[in-house]
Parts: sequence; C-alpha cells; structure tokens
Amino acid sequence: MRILSGIQPSGTLHIGNYFGMIKKMIESQNDGELFAFIASYHALTTVKDKEVLEKNIFEAAVNFLALGMDPEKSTFWVQSDVKEVLELYWILSNHTSMGLLERAHSYKDKVAKGLIPNHGLFSYPVLMAADILLYDSNLVPVGKDQIQHVEMTRDIANSFNNHYKENILVLPEAKVDEVVATVPGTDGAKMSKSYGNTIDMFGTKKGIKKQVMSIVTDSKDLDEAKDYTTCNIYKLCELFMNEDELKELQQRYATPGEGYGHFKLTLLDKINEHFAPYIQKREELINNPKEVKEILDFGAKKARKIAAAKMEKIREIVGL
Amino acid sequence: MRILSGIQPSGTLHIGNYFGMIKKMIESQNDGELFAFIASYHALTTVKDKEVLEKNIFEAAVNFLALGMDPEKSTFWVQSDVKEVLELYWILSNHTSMGLLERAHSYKDKVAKGLIPNHGLFSYPVLMAADILLYDSNLVPVGKDQIQHVEMTRDIANSFNNHYKENILVLPEAKVDEVVATVPGTDGAKMSKSYGNTIDMFGTKKGIKKQVMSIVTDSKDLDEAKDYTTCNIYKLCELFMNEDELKELQQRYATPGEGYGHFKLTLLDKINEHFAPYIQKREELINNPKEVKEILDFGAKKARKIAAAKMEKIREIVGL
Repeated sequence: MRILSGIQPSGTLHIGNYFGMIKKMIESQNDGELFAFIASYHALTTVKDKEVLEKNIFEAAVNFLALGMDPEKSTFWVQSDVKEVLELYWILSNHTSMGLLERAHSYKDKVAKGLIPNHGLFSYPVLMAADILLYDSNLVPVGKDQIQHVEMTRDIANSFNNHYKENILVLPEAKVDEVVATVPGTDGAKMSKSYGNTIDMFGTKKGIKKQVMSIVTDSKDLDEAKDYTTCNIYKLCELFMNEDELKELQQRYATPGEGYGHFKLTLLDKINEHFAPYIQKREELINNPKEVKEILDFGAKKARKIAAAKMEKIREIVGL
Repeated sequence: MRILSGIQPSGTLHIGNYFGMIKKMIESQNDGELFAFIASYHALTTVKDKEVLEKNIFEAAVNFLALGMDPEKSTFWVQSDVKEVLELYWILSNHTSMGLLERAHSYKDKVAKGLIPNHGLFSYPVLMAADILLYDSNLVPVGKDQIQHVEMTRDIANSFNNHYKENILVLPEAKVDEVVATVPGTDGAKMSKSYGNTIDMFGTKKGIKKQVMSIVTDSKDLDEAKDYTTCNIYKLCELFMNEDELKELQQRYATPGEGYGHFKLTLLDKINEHFAPYIQKREELINNPKEVKEILDFGAKKARKIAAAKMEKIREIVGL
C-alpha cells in the first residue's frame, strides 16, 4: 500500500503541527510505502519571495528528517525536482471540467480570505491530482478540508481512464483521522499560526519559555486548589505525559501551595525533554546542508524513476 | 530578432492555410531566427484520440519540412519534447490573475461554440505565454484573433518582471499582417475547414480535382462573355499566376467559347504545378519516418538547450 503525503514548506513548526499531522506521517512509515514530498510548486501559489521559499524548503527537509523521516525506507523529495508531475498536470487539465474546479471549497475560501485569485491557486487541485496519480498512491492522509481534493482526484482519474478505456490511473482513498488530537494553543483555541497562539517545536529556549509562560489560565492563587479538567496547561501536558505522570500532576492541582507558573515550568521541562533529541539531530543537519541535499537528491532519484515509467505509459496512451 | 510560431497539428492542410500563414512562416526564415514548434500540448485541449494526435503531429512535421522549413537554419521541434515549457507555465500561472484569463475572447468563443470548457482550454493562454517567453521571442506573427493572447503574454511577463525586480522575461510584439491574402473557398466564403469549402494541398489528385470542379460560379453559358472580377475561380488563380498569365486569363473570360469548367481545369493545372515539388518532397519524408524523427530530435535538442538555460535563471529567481 502506497501512502502519499505532501508537506507545505511553510516555515516554523509548532507542536500543533506535530501532534496533528507530522507524528502520524512519520509513524505511517510502518504502515506502508510512504511517498512524502515538499510541495515547492504548490508553495509558489502563495510564496513569491526567493529567500523565503528557499529557506522554507530547506527547513521542511531538515525538520522532517530530524523528526524521523527515513529516506531509505520512504521516498522523500522536493516536488520541483521531479518535473514529470507538471506534464501529468497538463494532461489531466484537459480532463478536468471547469465546473469541478469552480466548486472547490479551498479556492473559494482562500479568495474569501483576501488572497488574490491567481491561476495557480485556482488550478492547484489539478496539480494535487497529478501528485497523487503519478505515484499510484492508494492512500492520502488529509484533514477534513482536503477531502474534496481527493474526491476531485478520483473524478479526474475516472474521467481519464474512461476516456482512454485504460485502467491506468489508480483511484486513491482519502484517509481522514477522525480522532486527531486537537492541540490547544496558549489561549485555549486550536493552536494555529494564524491565531498567534503557538508553541514552537524548534524555537529558541527563551522563545519557547515565553510562549509556555503566556498560556492563559484562571486567576486562582497559590493557596487555592485548582481544577485540572479546564486548564490549558494540563491539556498540553496530556500530550507529553504518561498516565502516572498525569496522576501526579492532578495531585498537585488538587493540593494548594503551587501556582500555574509551577505547572508551566513542568510543561516546559516535558516539552524540552521530548524534543531534545530532534533538536540535536536538526542542528546536525542544519550544519550539514550538503548531506541534506544528497538525501533529497537520492529521494528525487527514487521518485523520478517511478514517475518517468508512469509518464511513459501515459504519454503512449494520449499519443505524445 | 527571434520569431516564434506555433503550428497546430490539425490534420489536412488546404491552400487557405498555405497562403494565409504557412508561406509567410517559411519566408520569415530569411527575416530572423525562426523558432517553430508543433503544438502537441495545446492540441491535447481538443484532440483526445491517440492515433489522431500521433498522425497529426507527424503530418505537421512532414508538411512543414516539405514546404521549406529548414531545420538547420531554424529551430523546429515538437512542443512536448521540451518539457521546460510546462515548468515556466506553472510558474507564470502564479502571476496570472484569474480576471485576465476570464476575459480571454478565444476561450469564450470556444465555449460558445459548444466545446466542453475544460481546464486546459481555459489556461491555454498561460501555456502560450510560456511558449513565447521561454525562448525570449521578440516577434509573434498571429492572426487578429490571437493579438489578445500576445497582449496577455506581455501582461504576465510584466507582472513577473516587476514582482521579482528582474528584467528576465522579454516582452514580445505581435505581428499582425494586415494584408493577409483572403483565400476564398469553393463557395466564395473564406476558405476554412469548418465551412467544408477547402481545396487540399496534399490531397489525392482525384480529390483535389473534385474540390476544384465544385467551385461555385454563376451560370453563364459557353457562348457568353464572363466577368472575371466576381469569379471565385479567377480569385484563386490570382494566387498562382503572374501578371501575364492573369491577363491571358482575363482575355479568355472576355471571349465567348469557353465555360467555367475550362477555367477550373486551368486552375487545377496551376495548383498541381505549384505544389508538385512539395508533394514529391513530402512523399520522400513520409517514406522515411526515421529521418523525420531525427530532424525533430535535432530541433528539440537545439530548443532544449536554450530552454534549459532560461529555466535555470528563472528557477534561481523564484527560489526553486
């Protein structure tokens, strides 16, 4: 079973990204053949600054490798290093009705949010279909907002297969994890960069401490017992602690004498402890960009081999 | 000065194509550096049959080579053999506003004519912009219906250059020949495949004779003098005859004794005489598909060299 995951090179990661998506992607390397790419072509729809794009692509590579992406076991590459995807994108464009694209929620949402509607943004679902279909992907783990794109991919693939009377494009399934851990941000709302309520994974020690110390709580005093069930600090601790540790923490909430500042420091320790090995691995990679490039080149080579073989068949079918 | 011309691989050529466009394209090889490609990617927007597309691409190659395309002097290739164009197309898509594409006449016209509006058709002007800009084209000879596409290309190039503060994309000029010979069809209307009033260039002798004999005239008898100024046969003769020959023909119109059938045979002789050397060259090429392939590969290699160098710069600018 082949699993395809696209990684938006969108800069700084926070622990909401980690527990929401990254951890599962890394773990999926044990469930099937993971194909994971850094979506550099997609990024162009919104990132139009050379330095930012280059930095984001490099950081995405470094972050995911540090977090456990295994370039031997999986196929991990930068999208724009395998140009075959654009040829499939063009071919599929001719089997994608305008109506299908006009009905895409995510385009409508982005325009509603004030993004200038450029053609790249509009046609993004066709490129996503090419990403998926080029590698005969069976499973595409997505958030709920992306289910429609996988459905569109199936529509486009069906239309192509029917037209040419060839069973060439594999219909993918969307995999939506219904029990995704909702990671609260420092203000209690869903952690999200756009809300400014994140705790960074790979920030400076000082920066992360500042973010943790800013977690919003009620204003109970040191000498009052506190309610862990409604506390944002506790909810975040749940992500990092085992049952025994959580019981001990509940005890501390129930016992007057400590304040929220103390619990925040406990959380901070757990965060630092959890990410320490990744941070170290990440530092090593950052100091060795040549190695990172070699890993990505190796991944692109693996991906390109499959992509080229697939495109040879597809070109033959359409008559190119 | 670099001149870019796209050739739609659309099957059988008629003499309207020849005098309207092909002759000028061939002659433009003396005016500048001609870059001419067979638009196989564009063809996919409407041709969705493998055999038809392959046949049309091969025929376009054979026809243009027979008619004088010089693969040494010019650069002559099949569009889909230089994949760089699709990467530029994707990059430019992100600098093309949806409004610009929605205002394209040719898309609206095609949809009005009943073509199913697929995404390829809609985004075709962006691919055309990539075709033009990839090769630093200075001049694009077009029909009036295509002027808007060259203007769109300039808009997109300007937007890209301004955004990245680089003068990287060369703004092309449309070259519209105002005095294009309007070639009448057999019914007197403009010769066009869609009107079914064509005289083929490379048809069978029998087929061409049938087409010429079907030219519509008035019903004057053998023993009446005839008016050449309103006669479709004469108008077609003008394309093939010099002044002396035309004077002689005018004489024959003025003198009772001959009928339109005779004039048609005279026209037929001139057509056969004119195209005989091309037909012979074309036969040679058809019987030597390996040579045709070698010529196209040679052209693709020349085009790719320029395209690859250009894309290296553009990738650098956008941060890929």
